[in-house]
Amino acid sequence: MKVKIGKKILNANESFAEKNRRIFAKNNILCFNMISSPGSGKTTILVRTIGELAGKIRIGIIEGDIQTDLDAQRIRKTRAPVVQINTKGGCHLSAAQVNKAIKLLPLDRLDIIVIENVGNLVCPSVFELGEAAKIAVLSVAEGDDKPAKYPEIFARAKAMLINKIDLLDLGAQIDFNIKRVEKDARKLNRKIEIFHVSAKTGDGFKNWCSWLMELSKK
Amino acid sequence: MKVKIGKKILNANESFAEKNRRIFAKNNILCFNMISSPGSGKTTILVRTIGELAGKIRIGIIEGDIQTDLDAQRIRKTRAPVVQINTKGGCHLSAAQVNKAIKLLPLDRLDIIVIENVGNLVCPSVFELGEAAKIAVLSVAEGDDKPAKYPEIFARAKAMLINKIDLLDLGAQIDFNIKRVEKDARKLNRKIEIFHVSAKTGDGFKNWCSWLMELSKK
Repeated sequence: MKVKIGKKILNANESFAEKNRRIFAKNNILCFNMISSPGSGKTTILVRTIGELAGKIRIGIIEGDIQTDLDAQRIRKTRAPVVQINTKGGCHLSAAQVNKAIKLLPLDRLDIIVIENVGNLVCPSVFELGEAAKIAVLSVAEGDDKPAKYPEIFARAKAMLINKIDLLDLGAQIDFNIKRVEKDARKLNRKIEIFHVSAKTGDGFKNWCSWLMELSKK
Repeated sequence: MKVKIGKKILNANESFAEKNRRIFAKNNILCFNMISSPGSGKTTILVRTIGELAGKIRIGIIEGDIQTDLDAQRIRKTRAPVVQINTKGGCHLSAAQVNKAIKLLPLDRLDIIVIENVGNLVCPSVFELGEAAKIAVLSVAEGDDKPAKYPEIFARAKAMLINKIDLLDLGAQIDFNIKRVEKDARKLNRKIEIFHVSAKTGDGFKNWCSWLMELSKK
């Protein structure tokens, strides 16, 4: 698969993405498509975000994984509504899969839906799911060359979360130059919002959650 | 793209993989296809491996990246021969791309070629490049659920390197149960060889490099 993938596939996907957009608009739901490498901490970020915003914003989750429902099990403990999609080998979620999942969520009781895509920094970037915005997650353990080497998602994301910042305390054990990452990301995308967070300690969640609340009020 | 991708695409790829296999056999070269998520430490592993085996085994590298030649620059400093492939959006290397790259390497002066695939734990697993074996890399920072959630590469790899084990000293800051990973990987692949390494400190490289030397003598 290339980013310049066959137009037919992208057009078929786009017609479902448009259906999803209409469903979100009708129900006044803000939808995010969260994209990252495997293991950057997307699920842990979602669990903490749901907790921080409990009683303020109602969040539903769509979990995309190749197989297992391990991530949905983790979300379920927060009591947020969650639907698991298994792609069974597929390297990204399609808008058609999301369309089925949406119908299993209590749309009239949600303000935000976050779609956690399959862990893959490449393919999910080019498949629109009907989201209002993409969120890129990058953990400091992955190294600071990722926006340069995998530009597509950083060019398209409305926000980037730099996660696991607690590991930066280790000094030389983690080589990660935040300034380089921010510079490379902004070169691709002048308007990208950048948050430094640790989903483990909660560091940086105040800013991230305020931003989500602001957006959901618009 | 699905793992059950169109037969035509896989067949076209397979014919180039077969060409590559013949070239490797003719030149008595052992070829590995190294696959992991972005940021698991493939390039750092290769730089240290080349250093450890200097004067014993002659290693050439094919670097696969979506864009930039950052990884090839790092390899070049070791003086090992290296060819950079830019996939320009492609989420995996194809056997045809590797076929072009092979021709730029000094085959008569190499014992091993390692192909560092695009950082992607999903798509590269199903595209044969003509390699003798696949090597999976997983860093402890990615979490211990990866073999369960991304089974394809762990089912197909001859060996798995668990990298960044120096971070395990951090205790609770890194949640990574090595036993769980090994159990899940062996459930998929009874014969998989597992090495615990730190490409940063050199821990575990003696075993890994001995294994490479043994294989290259066969």
